[in-house]
Amino acid sequence: MISFISSGVCSRTQYARERVIPAVENIKLKYYTVDVVSAQYYNNRRPVRYIEFSVVPIPLRTAVVLGYIAYLYNTVAVNGGRQMAVDRSRTLCPVAAVIVLLLQTLLIQPLTEASAGHCRLACSLRDEIAGYRPIVDRVLSYVQDQKGYKGKTWAALSEFTDTFGSRLAGTPNLENSIDYMLNRLRTTNLDNVHAERVVFTGWQRRKEFARLVSPRVKNLAMLGLGGSVSTVPEGIRAEVVVVTSFDDLLNKSSEVNGKIVVYNQPFVSYGETVKYRSKGASEASKYGAVATLIRSITPFSLNTPHAGQQDYSDGVKKIPTACITVEDAELLNRMYNRGSKLEIFLKMDSKFFANATSRNTVAEIKGSTDPDKIVLVSGHLDSWDVGQGAMDDGGGAFISWNSLAVLKNFGLRPKRTIRCLLWTAEEEGYIGAYAYLKSHISELEKFNLVIESDEGTFQPYGIAFHGSDTSACIMAEVAKLFDSINATTMQSTKDNVGSDIEVFENMNIPGLSLLNRNEKYFWYHHTEADTMAVEDPDSLDLNTAMFAVISYIIADLSVELPKS
Amino acid sequence: MISFISSGVCSRTQYARERVIPAVENIKLKYYTVDVVSAQYYNNRRPVRYIEFSVVPIPLRTAVVLGYIAYLYNTVAVNGGRQMAVDRSRTLCPVAAVIVLLLQTLLIQPLTEASAGHCRLACSLRDEIAGYRPIVDRVLSYVQDQKGYKGKTWAALSEFTDTFGSRLAGTPNLENSIDYMLNRLRTTNLDNVHAERVVFTGWQRRKEFARLVSPRVKNLAMLGLGGSVSTVPEGIRAEVVVVTSFDDLLNKSSEVNGKIVVYNQPFVSYGETVKYRSKGASEASKYGAVATLIRSITPFSLNTPHAGQQDYSDGVKKIPTACITVEDAELLNRMYNRGSKLEIFLKMDSKFFANATSRNTVAEIKGSTDPDKIVLVSGHLDSWDVGQGAMDDGGGAFISWNSLAVLKNFGLRPKRTIRCLLWTAEEEGYIGAYAYLKSHISELEKFNLVIESDEGTFQPYGIAFHGSDTSACIMAEVAKLFDSINATTMQSTKDNVGSDIEVFENMNIPGLSLLNRNEKYFWYHHTEADTMAVEDPDSLDLNTAMFAVISYIIADLSVELPKS
Ligand SMILES: [Zn+2]
Ligand SMILES: [Zn+2]
Repeated sequence: MISFISSGVCSRTQYARERVIPAVENIKLKYYTVDVVSAQYYNNRRPVRYIEFSVVPIPLRTAVVLGYIAYLYNTVAVNGGRQMAVDRSRTLCPVAAVIVLLLQTLLIQPLTEASAGHCRLACSLRDEIAGYRPIVDRVLSYVQDQKGYKGKTWAALSEFTDTFGSRLAGTPNLENSIDYMLNRLRTTNLDNVHAERVVFTGWQRRKEFARLVSPRVKNLAMLGLGGSVSTVPEGIRAEVVVVTSFDDLLNKSSEVNGKIVVYNQPFVSYGETVKYRSKGASEASKYGAVATLIRSITPFSLNTPHAGQQDYSDGVKKIPTACITVEDAELLNRMYNRGSKLEIFLKMDSKFFANATSRNTVAEIKGSTDPDKIVLVSGHLDSWDVGQGAMDDGGGAFISWNSLAVLKNFGLRPKRTIRCLLWTAEEEGYIGAYAYLKSHISELEKFNLVIESDEGTFQPYGIAFHGSDTSACIMAEVAKLFDSINATTMQSTKDNVGSDIEVFENMNIPGLSLLNRNEKYFWYHHTEADTMAVEDPDSLDLNTAMFAVISYIIADLSVELPKS
Repeated sequence: MISFISSGVCSRTQYARERVIPAVENIKLKYYTVDVVSAQYYNNRRPVRYIEFSVVPIPLRTAVVLGYIAYLYNTVAVNGGRQMAVDRSRTLCPVAAVIVLLLQTLLIQPLTEASAGHCRLACSLRDEIAGYRPIVDRVLSYVQDQKGYKGKTWAALSEFTDTFGSRLAGTPNLENSIDYMLNRLRTTNLDNVHAERVVFTGWQRRKEFARLVSPRVKNLAMLGLGGSVSTVPEGIRAEVVVVTSFDDLLNKSSEVNGKIVVYNQPFVSYGETVKYRSKGASEASKYGAVATLIRSITPFSLNTPHAGQQDYSDGVKKIPTACITVEDAELLNRMYNRGSKLEIFLKMDSKFFANATSRNTVAEIKGSTDPDKIVLVSGHLDSWDVGQGAMDDGGGAFISWNSLAVLKNFGLRPKRTIRCLLWTAEEEGYIGAYAYLKSHISELEKFNLVIESDEGTFQPYGIAFHGSDTSACIMAEVAKLFDSINATTMQSTKDNVGSDIEVFENMNIPGLSLLNRNEKYFWYHHTEADTMAVEDPDSLDLNTAMFAVISYIIADLSVELPKS
C-alpha cells in the first residue's frame, strides 16, 4: 500500500510528478493493484479523513492518476492549513475526478506542467521556503508590536533627517551624516562596520533666479539642474520659445537661436518624461538656444520645482538649464500661444569641485557557514540639496540597516552574509555604486542578490524582481509568506529594479526591490517637500520587516539564487 | 364628474390636499357618487390611461381618498415625465389602494403632511419652478456645446489671470485688472456697467525671511500674514517655544517671554483651525512672545506656506506673525520635543498705506418689470499676493459675470434685475462688501437673494442655501432642475454660505453658493499654487450655467424669496 501526504505547498500536478510517479516507479512493476479506501489520521489533533490506495494490477499511468487522487483528497483535508471535514457527497467525487484526470493524462502536458504558472521548483525547495514562515511571522509581529520594534525605523529616520537635513554629495553635511551612521551601526553591534572612500567631481548650486520680465513681471520658481553650467555673472535676458516635445523643438528649430527654450512637455511617466530633464539642454543647444527651462517631471504640483541631474551631450555647447514648475510652464505656454513676446531673465551660479570625496557605508551580519557569499541590501544616504532626503532615499537607507538591526535583535544569523550598503552620490549618477563595483569586482561572483529601496517606503504590497526564471520562482515562494500583510505580489521583470543596484544587475546579479504604494512618489521627488511628512511609521515597519526576512531567507537557503 | 391631472411635480398627498379636497368641497355636498372608470388622454402625443371618478353618495373623506386614487393613477402614467403604459394588472390595484388610503385617512396626518420632507410649497409654485426646466436644459446644453459657450469661462479666466497674475488690494495691478473687467463687461453688452469706489488702509509685504539658525541652519519657507507689523530692520533672533494649541500655549506661558512661538496645531477644518492664524499672534503676545510662526492652515502641503489675514486683539502688543509650512512646523516640534534649544532668525518688512483706493465692479441684466428688485451674483476680483488668484477667487468672479453673459446671449431678461458684483479687498476682511452695504443700505429691502462663489469652482453638485424655511423649499425645487448634471443636492444651513455676502446675510438677505467638489480647496488656498492648473474648463462651464439659471429663476419667479 502506498499513501501520500502533502505539506500543501506544492501544486497538485507537481506533487504527482515529483512524488507519486517516482514512488510508483520504484516498485518496478508494470501493473498495480489499486483499491481506494478511506481512513483517519490526526492533523493538529483533529481527525481528518483522507484516501489511501493499495496496489492492484492496472496500467502505470492509471496508478499515477489514482495516486494523484489520493493526494488530491488529502489536500482537501489539509490544504492551506485549513481543516475541513470531507463529507459523504465529497467521497463520491473520485469517480468524476478519475475521468477528468484520465483525460488530463492523455494530454500529458497538463499533468506535468504546473498549473500555478511557469514555475517548476522542486517541492523540497518550496517546502524549505515555506518552512521560514514561523520566522516571517515572528518578525512581522515584532515590527508591529509596541513593545517590539514598532515605530523604531521612523524614529531613527526622523532623528537623522531632522539633525542633518538634505545631504548633497560633496558637502560636509553628508560626511557628518555618514559619521553619525557609522556610529549608529556600530552601536547596533553589526559586523564589519566601515566606510569605503569615493572620489568624484562635485556640483553645488549657489544663487539662481528666473523671472518673466515681459509682457509682465513674474518670478519663476526654479531649481538649476545637477551639473548645469552657470550663466554669465550678470545673468541673461532673452526671448522665449515654448515647445511641448522634442518633435515640437525640431519644428521650431529655426526660431530657437539666441532664445531661452521652455519645455512644457506633458507628464507621461517618470521613465518616459525624464529625458526632457536629462537631454533638454543639449537638444535645444544644438539649435543655438542660450538656456533651457524645463517643466518639472511630476504628475502633481503645488507650484513645486523639482531638482535632478542632467546630462550634456558630447560636442554640444553646454548651456544653463533648470526646472521650473508645471504651473509656470503651462502659463508660459498659454502666453506664447496667444502670440505674446515673452522675455525671461535668468541668473544661475553653480560650482564644480574636482576631487570631492565621500564614502559608501557598510555594515554586515556575517554568514555562519558561508560568510564570503553575499546578499546585499541597500539604499542611498545622499540626497539632493532641497528637502530633507527623507523619502529619497532616507527611507530606503533606513529600512535597509534597520532590517539588519531586526535580525540582530532576533539573533538570526543566516548561512551567508547579509551586507548593508548605504550608497553615496547616487543622485549624480550612481557614483558610489560604480566605485563599489570597481573595487569589489573580484568578489562579484559571490553576490547572490542585490536589494535596494529607492522608490519609496510607502505601504508595501510585494516584490519586484529581476533575475533568472528559476530565481523568480524562488522569490515568488518567498512572496507568499507575506500574505498576512497583503504583500504577496511578485513582479518579475526584464528591467532593472533599482538605481544603484542597476550597476550590479547589469553584471548579471539578481536584483530585488519592494513594490509599494508609491503612486505619489514623484509628487515629492527632488523637492522641498521630501520631508518626514511623506513617511509613515507603520509602512516603514513593514518595509523593514520584509527586507529583513527576504535577505535572511535568501542568505540562508540551501541553494543560492541561480543566475541565468 | 371630477378629474385631476397632475404635472407630476407635487407629492401625492400634497396634491390631494391642495387640489382634490378643495375641488370636492366646492361641490358643497356631503355625499358624492363615485365611479372609477378609465379613459385615455394624450401626453406629449402618446396615449396614456388614467382614471376618472364621478360623484356618488359617499362620505367626504372617502371621496377625497378616491380622488386621490385618481390622481395616483394618473401619476403612474406621467410621473417624472416618464410615459408608462398602465397594464391590466395595474388597473386591478385600486381596490388595494382604497384600503391603504382609507387607513391613511384615519391617521389624517400622513395625508396632510408632505412625504418629501418638511416643505409645503403650493403646487402652483412648484409647477411654476418646474416650468423653467426647458430653460435650464437649454443653458446646460449651451455651456456643454463646442459651438456654444463650452470652455469660454476658462478661456476668459486664463487670459485674465495670465495677464494680471495676483491682485492684491491697494496695488495698481488690481486696479488695472478692474479696468480690464469694466471694458470686458461693457463689450459683453451688460447693463449699467460701472465701478464703485472703496477707500481703506492697505498692507503690502516687502522683504521677509525666516531661518532656523540653531542647532542647525535651515531656511523656513514662510509668508507674513496680512496686517502683520514688521520686525526691527535688522531682524530678530530668538529662542523658540513650540505649542500645539492655545491650551498648550497656556501651559507653557511662563516659557514664552522673549521667545518666538511656533504653533504646530493639527488641521481639523479651515473653520476650526484658522483661529490660530487669526489670533495666534495676540494670544502669544499676551505672554511676551516677540513673534509667532504659525503652521499653515491646510490638510496637505508640498512644503507650501499659506498667506492670509490676521487680526490683532485690542490692547495687546502687536508682534510680527507669519505662516510657515506644515512640514517645518512638525520638524520644529520634533526637535523641540527632543529637548533641542532652537533659535530662529526672523526678518519681516511690510508697508501699511492709509487711504488706499479700489473699486467694486458692477454689471447688470436689468429686470423687465421690476428692475429695482435685485438678485445679486458675485465673486471677488482681488487676491492675495501669492499665486495667480485663479481659484480664490478668479473662478468665482468669472462664473458670476459669465452667468450674465450666458443669459444675455440667450436674450433672457427676468422680471427683476440680476446684478453682478465683483468685490474688491475681500481678503483684508470683506472691505469691498462692507463699503457696498454702507452705500446701498437704503435699497437693501429690494435684495431678494445674494449669491457668491468663493469656495472653489470645482465640479458642482448642488446648492448651499441660507435663508427662511420657505425660501429653502423654493431653492430645493430649483435644485431638482439640475438632475441631468447630478447637481440636485440642496443643503440648507443656519450658517452663512459666503464670504463677502455674509455682510448681507447678516442683514437677513437669503444667501446662496454652490456645493462643489472642493475637497482640495485648502491645498491651494492663499498659496503660490493658486493657478489656472486648479481650474477645470468643464466644471467652470457647469458652475456658470448654474449661476445663470439660479439667478434667472429667482429673479423671474412670480414670488420673491420670503425672508424669515
Ligand atoms: Zn534616490
Ligand atoms: Zn476668497
